[in-house]
Amino acid sequence: MKDSKAAPLTLPSDAPTEASGPVGAFERFLARQILAFLGNAPITIALWNGEEISTNDACHVGRLVIRDRAALWKLCLNPDLHFGDLYSVGRAEIEGDFVHFLETAYAGVSSSPQIKLLKHIRNYVNRPRRNTLDSARDHIQHHYDLGNEFYQLWLDTEAMQYTCAYYPEPALTLEQAQRAKMDHVCRKLQLKPGDRVVEAGCGWGGFARHMAHHYGVTVHSYNISREQIRFARDKAKEQGLDGRIEYVEDDYRNITGKFDAFVSVGMLEHVGRDNFRPLGDVINRCLTEKGRGLIHSIGRNRADLMNAWIEKRIFPGAYPPTLREMMEVFEPHRLSVLDVENIRLHYARTLEQWLERFDHHASDVEKTYDHAFVRAWRLYLAGSIAAFTTGSLQLFQVVFTRERNNELAPSRAHLYQS
Amino acid sequence: MKDSKAAPLTLPSDAPTEASGPVGAFERFLARQILAFLGNAPITIALWNGEEISTNDACHVGRLVIRDRAALWKLCLNPDLHFGDLYSVGRAEIEGDFVHFLETAYAGVSSSPQIKLLKHIRNYVNRPRRNTLDSARDHIQHHYDLGNEFYQLWLDTEAMQYTCAYYPEPALTLEQAQRAKMDHVCRKLQLKPGDRVVEAGCGWGGFARHMAHHYGVTVHSYNISREQIRFARDKAKEQGLDGRIEYVEDDYRNITGKFDAFVSVGMLEHVGRDNFRPLGDVINRCLTEKGRGLIHSIGRNRADLMNAWIEKRIFPGAYPPTLREMMEVFEPHRLSVLDVENIRLHYARTLEQWLERFDHHASDVEKTYDHAFVRAWRLYLAGSIAAFTTGSLQLFQVVFTRERNNELAPSRAHLYQS
Repeated sequence: MKDSKAAPLTLPSDAPTEASGPVGAFERFLARQILAFLGNAPITIALWNGEEISTNDACHVGRLVIRDRAALWKLCLNPDLHFGDLYSVGRAEIEGDFVHFLETAYAGVSSSPQIKLLKHIRNYVNRPRRNTLDSARDHIQHHYDLGNEFYQLWLDTEAMQYTCAYYPEPALTLEQAQRAKMDHVCRKLQLKPGDRVVEAGCGWGGFARHMAHHYGVTVHSYNISREQIRFARDKAKEQGLDGRIEYVEDDYRNITGKFDAFVSVGMLEHVGRDNFRPLGDVINRCLTEKGRGLIHSIGRNRADLMNAWIEKRIFPGAYPPTLREMMEVFEPHRLSVLDVENIRLHYARTLEQWLERFDHHASDVEKTYDHAFVRAWRLYLAGSIAAFTTGSLQLFQVVFTRERNNELAPSRAHLYQS
Repeated sequence: MKDSKAAPLTLPSDAPTEASGPVGAFERFLARQILAFLGNAPITIALWNGEEISTNDACHVGRLVIRDRAALWKLCLNPDLHFGDLYSVGRAEIEGDFVHFLETAYAGVSSSPQIKLLKHIRNYVNRPRRNTLDSARDHIQHHYDLGNEFYQLWLDTEAMQYTCAYYPEPALTLEQAQRAKMDHVCRKLQLKPGDRVVEAGCGWGGFARHMAHHYGVTVHSYNISREQIRFARDKAKEQGLDGRIEYVEDDYRNITGKFDAFVSVGMLEHVGRDNFRPLGDVINRCLTEKGRGLIHSIGRNRADLMNAWIEKRIFPGAYPPTLREMMEVFEPHRLSVLDVENIRLHYARTLEQWLERFDHHASDVEKTYDHAFVRAWRLYLAGSIAAFTTGSLQLFQVVFTRERNNELAPSRAHLYQS
């Protein structure tokens, strides 16, 4: 088992200052290995001496500049893991349209035939950390306690939703699309005034406030990020909703009580596969006889680890499940899946809007953190866009209820009535 | 492996004619075992001498009359398998509301705690037959070649849909609801004029004609039931659609060509788990780069065999999969699941309407077949209602596309515009 402590977000700037020596046949061979790993995608690799290696494809989308020999080696040995760090500190650079370059690389990797065995080895080396009760707290605080001010710079201003928004009309603003997402989820849950809702993983509490304010329900929201809980409580008090929402600083595994609805938006991808059955036990324990539930999570079409660098630097312990794997939550308790919707392209659009705002505030972020931090976050946001547009990641909303609940809507038309 | 030949639908009437002897402590013990198997459901068991055994529950929903000692033994040893035959020949009788009695029994069985081990043993004894290319033909002809006239008595008159209808308004007639189902599927597939559609398992071809007529597509429809194919071709010619539909009398595993849409309504539950991967291979082979698909199938919340009697007498080789198991079709080829809808209560309603019509024509059916056949079919239809209302069976519609297809509708609202 790996150390459960997360790697620091500010990277050691270990860029070699001296020149990396001459480029020979072996360096060219290594560069071609990287191209092969990328499925011979139409990109150019430029080495530190200016020499370029590329496939014969006429229309190249950009250049990957590798600035030293050690960086070249690292990219050959474990590109998923090392590229992020090397890019962050400037030892690797992307020239050309950033997102388009990453999309091309992602598309190349997954269609590369020789990659499967390598992937198995890397998946073992890079396997995610386990989320015990203690380490889960470390993992979540690592990411979410970066500072509320940081996230306020680029998330939607109203509800601070750090999850996929919903764009039934493509031209929606981020704020509108996050509101549309929250309403979509509330409609899927068929919330009615007086319902008791429990929320597992509540972020800054914006969705709980939306439910309490617009749907007349009471909410118990669980989160292990201290910073977020504090922020959420202050906001609820400000809006006079503190009587209807209880923000609980605790792990979802400690949820108690009985509820008409269970909801979790953007938590499942953080809990790890080991915890799917315990999560199902929690749901089974807390749901009433006619209870409904919704889980909103990043997922995969086929089982694979989270990108190793994202897991190391951004989301320790993260694992995006397939639908098959998600069923481990529901099957043991015969929970009945009523509706699954995959809105992956909505996440690409959400991330585009986040990246736009992030870029707008990049100099502020650099003042608080540093240049490598800004580059790491840009890579994370842009890389995530590429992962969703190329179908490497999915976004599933799964609605479920108890097997015996026959109080079901006759159709899903109610989700689409304005 | 079991014999792949299906059991005949007309049962040997082996009801003992002489009296079955006295009822003693042991017979009462066996009757109580049956009650325990039914989770001590609020029903009464009446033995051949008139003696009644029941739980203390005040409000009993009906009586199960067991007419001889051998029947009692058989019900104890393998109730799933034997009840159907015993009921068909009148050695077991249900008094009270038929469907309500069966619902109570179904609900009891699945909540009975001591049943799990027994179930494992029975699931081994009763395991379904395999569907090889040859046996699949036997299995399908066993059921579907009973005679088109038989099915015409009680299916919808327009399209002869022998699959779950769709009732966005609960008051729809069977004909309206089957039309609504076909339109719902076409909208999910986003069919547009000129699209090439392949259909795996086409029944009497009604859905192919609906697609060709109302959506301007061309259809290749595969079916291994000779009777159905002949009927389908005649109808298409009658309606002037034979230029746009090719009905192919062949197994879905032999599908060739490239198509914009793959659709299969009510076939997956007949193919058996062994064939999920081959089915996925077929889909992957025949779908274009932007191709979409839909599989409509009976399913389960948790893995379990089809009821043993149904598998033996009605649907040889049938297996209703869980969503997890269905993913075996999609995952190997990275097909991306876009939408899952569970409309199990719509199947209960469909079956109610079928049963009503069947009952209306029972005397006609009895003339062609016999009394046991009529009782067997009533039990199959009523038992299926109970299976869907108690959540023992589900009905999943799964929409999928290729991982890289980004031409996705912005939302599912288009399914609900009139």
